[in-house]
Amino acid sequence: MQELRVNGKRLWESIMETAKFGATSRGGVSRLSLSDEDRRVRDWFAEACKGARCEVTVDDMGNMVARRSGRHNAAVPIAIGSHLDTQPAGGKFDGIAGVLSGLEVIRTLNDVGYCTEAPLEVINWTNEEGSRFAPPMLGSGVFAGIISRDFAYSREDRQGRKFGEELERIGYRGSARCGEHRLGTYFELHIEQGPMLEMEGKTIGVVTEAQGQRWYEVTLTGQAGHAGSTPMHLRKDALLGCARIVEGVNCIGLDHAPLAVSTVGLVEVRPNSPNVIPGSVFFTVDLRHPEDDMMVKMDAEFREMVSRVAGESGLGVELSEIYVRPSTEFDRACVAQVREAAERLNYKYREMVSGPGHDALYVARMVPAALVFIPCEGGISHDEAENARPEDVEAGANVVLHVVLARDATTFEGKHV
Amino acid sequence: MQELRVNGKRLWESIMETAKFGATSRGGVSRLSLSDEDRRVRDWFAEACKGARCEVTVDDMGNMVARRSGRHNAAVPIAIGSHLDTQPAGGKFDGIAGVLSGLEVIRTLNDVGYCTEAPLEVINWTNEEGSRFAPPMLGSGVFAGIISRDFAYSREDRQGRKFGEELERIGYRGSARCGEHRLGTYFELHIEQGPMLEMEGKTIGVVTEAQGQRWYEVTLTGQAGHAGSTPMHLRKDALLGCARIVEGVNCIGLDHAPLAVSTVGLVEVRPNSPNVIPGSVFFTVDLRHPEDDMMVKMDAEFREMVSRVAGESGLGVELSEIYVRPSTEFDRACVAQVREAAERLNYKYREMVSGPGHDALYVARMVPAALVFIPCEGGISHDEAENARPEDVEAGANVVLHVVLARDATTFEGKHV
Repeated sequence: MQELRVNGKRLWESIMETAKFGATSRGGVSRLSLSDEDRRVRDWFAEACKGARCEVTVDDMGNMVARRSGRHNAAVPIAIGSHLDTQPAGGKFDGIAGVLSGLEVIRTLNDVGYCTEAPLEVINWTNEEGSRFAPPMLGSGVFAGIISRDFAYSREDRQGRKFGEELERIGYRGSARCGEHRLGTYFELHIEQGPMLEMEGKTIGVVTEAQGQRWYEVTLTGQAGHAGSTPMHLRKDALLGCARIVEGVNCIGLDHAPLAVSTVGLVEVRPNSPNVIPGSVFFTVDLRHPEDDMMVKMDAEFREMVSRVAGESGLGVELSEIYVRPSTEFDRACVAQVREAAERLNYKYREMVSGPGHDALYVARMVPAALVFIPCEGGISHDEAENARPEDVEAGANVVLHVVLARDATTFEGKHV
Repeated sequence: MQELRVNGKRLWESIMETAKFGATSRGGVSRLSLSDEDRRVRDWFAEACKGARCEVTVDDMGNMVARRSGRHNAAVPIAIGSHLDTQPAGGKFDGIAGVLSGLEVIRTLNDVGYCTEAPLEVINWTNEEGSRFAPPMLGSGVFAGIISRDFAYSREDRQGRKFGEELERIGYRGSARCGEHRLGTYFELHIEQGPMLEMEGKTIGVVTEAQGQRWYEVTLTGQAGHAGSTPMHLRKDALLGCARIVEGVNCIGLDHAPLAVSTVGLVEVRPNSPNVIPGSVFFTVDLRHPEDDMMVKMDAEFREMVSRVAGESGLGVELSEIYVRPSTEFDRACVAQVREAAERLNYKYREMVSGPGHDALYVARMVPAALVFIPCEGGISHDEAENARPEDVEAGANVVLHVVLARDATTFEGKHV
């Protein structure tokens, strides 16, 4: 099957088809987890998988598994997956390219009537983005036993709606218990969401490990007051404290560059009126580093800085760490198979560390797994301008196809009854 | 009539009655201009004025005028006014104390059957706060010919709803043409919204002048990107630029303290997701100083600072000045009458400069006017914690009552037919 290739045109059309669910005027996608748009893309995906002769099941976290039978259906499956939810102003590819590459692999095998030894599965994990329900990767997190189901169900969006209720509302709280379904191996294709592959003219990123990440929520409390009549020296301006912490967070990233990154992405000012001194500010902080001991150091620096700024600015502070993900090393054999597939297919590749979190990071705690990157334009992601070239998406899907075939052959080599 | 006093209990009860329209769980009021809550308080006010035998008219800016006849109904009226709209998380007194003191003055005169020479009017000006539709004081601004009606009608809230449409929607676009109604004198009672009176144990602030104010809207544009995979040195983080400008705005206020104040009150981050580098940030800036030449200097410093920060941070910038109000001196004779009334009534008072904008500032361009302050707890305003003591509200209303009586007597002295 060395000559087998996916149908790049069909894959691209599927991606464009899903981009209609939550399409924005600026060419992006707004499809928050468990929204009506998410329900619609799930319905579409289920139909498409059934059309490719797969059986579709949904677990009680809303994770969707489409299964194509193999010769040995009692064997653990080889799975391909990612997510179909997006950022509030996200793009067409982040997550979607991974799920639909899985579907394309199955369609390609159907085209030639090839039956694998093990069953193949394509998975759509719930709430990877975490922008509606923090933290991210709730579906794969519960699957991997890292996040408890009750915690996941209790997570609220900014309007106070609970994950569990919204899952029920869109009709995707399945009966299968999340975590009980066994996988044999897991592969995930994803856009890089950074600029390295494009800058170096590479087509495939062979991801060997992933950064550790910590996510915090901070609330600063001062005193709201009239902007015209409260003298400067009597103010307790929560936004001024936030501004100093934004600068401090940026410094932590710079101090530990090039491996570290640090970001304040979400800010809510209260009462948020032009002529009122902000009485309180809520914001999130995201720190990442591939080395766990450096993460510990950055965490300590961050906490010290927040306390100092709050003290100096006369503000009350509440800081909670809502998410800790240690760094992850992917299974060496799986990573080697990705590298070999890229070589055989004659794609330029490089090894790399993943900055973003991905479902593969959690799944890798349970089963051998690997992550494949393809370039995206300008490294831009989590933005409506996110873009990828059809030939790169096709190349990524071909790597996944051949990794799956190689894995299937290896696992069952000499084990046939 | 030297012994005449308002009914403080009745005035207080009226204030508490209006506080129900838009009451918040934390004891404040959320009654944005032209909202349903605003409509309800307007309906209540119209009924209350009719109950006090006033004729109520509404002009095409939604300004409400309640008129009590005098002996000489062709004479220009003495007006008392302020506003019934509030900040999004505002208090019970800001604006409301002024309007209801006017109503209480009329009720008090009704109680004793006293007929003034000139007609008396109580005015509720539309959209004083400016937090839903910027800039503030649209109703009195159009009245004074400083803001054009078309500009006012075209102002949009953050959801894109226009002032003119919302005015129509709540049924308060009257037929009278705003600006054509003539006033003879105008008095406004208001809480100080600052800490000075309370700190010095004074009951009455005799306002001699008001600060100049400039209001800006700024949009910084960088590049949204993934918080995990965009290296620090390749970022264009719009929030980082905003943070630096928040610090810079604060420095401008401190540099010109104690007379200057400077505030960033409203910030909107886009896309506002924890793991996305902010691609753009919109925010407002409020600068004030009682001396116009210092305002010019602060304006120049501010513009230079914004350009420098945007340049250094690699961000695009749009800066628009949406509101300029020069400093205002109140009519000397009116101010003297306020001082004399406070003295006669034996209230401790001090002269002061108003930091906040008030409808009186615009009205003062057209007719002799004065502004009377009373203390508020901790100087806090534009916050649900805003509070005032019943005895101070009563004292302020008594000053207004006696200023009105004195004005009425002075104006018509020797002019009786």
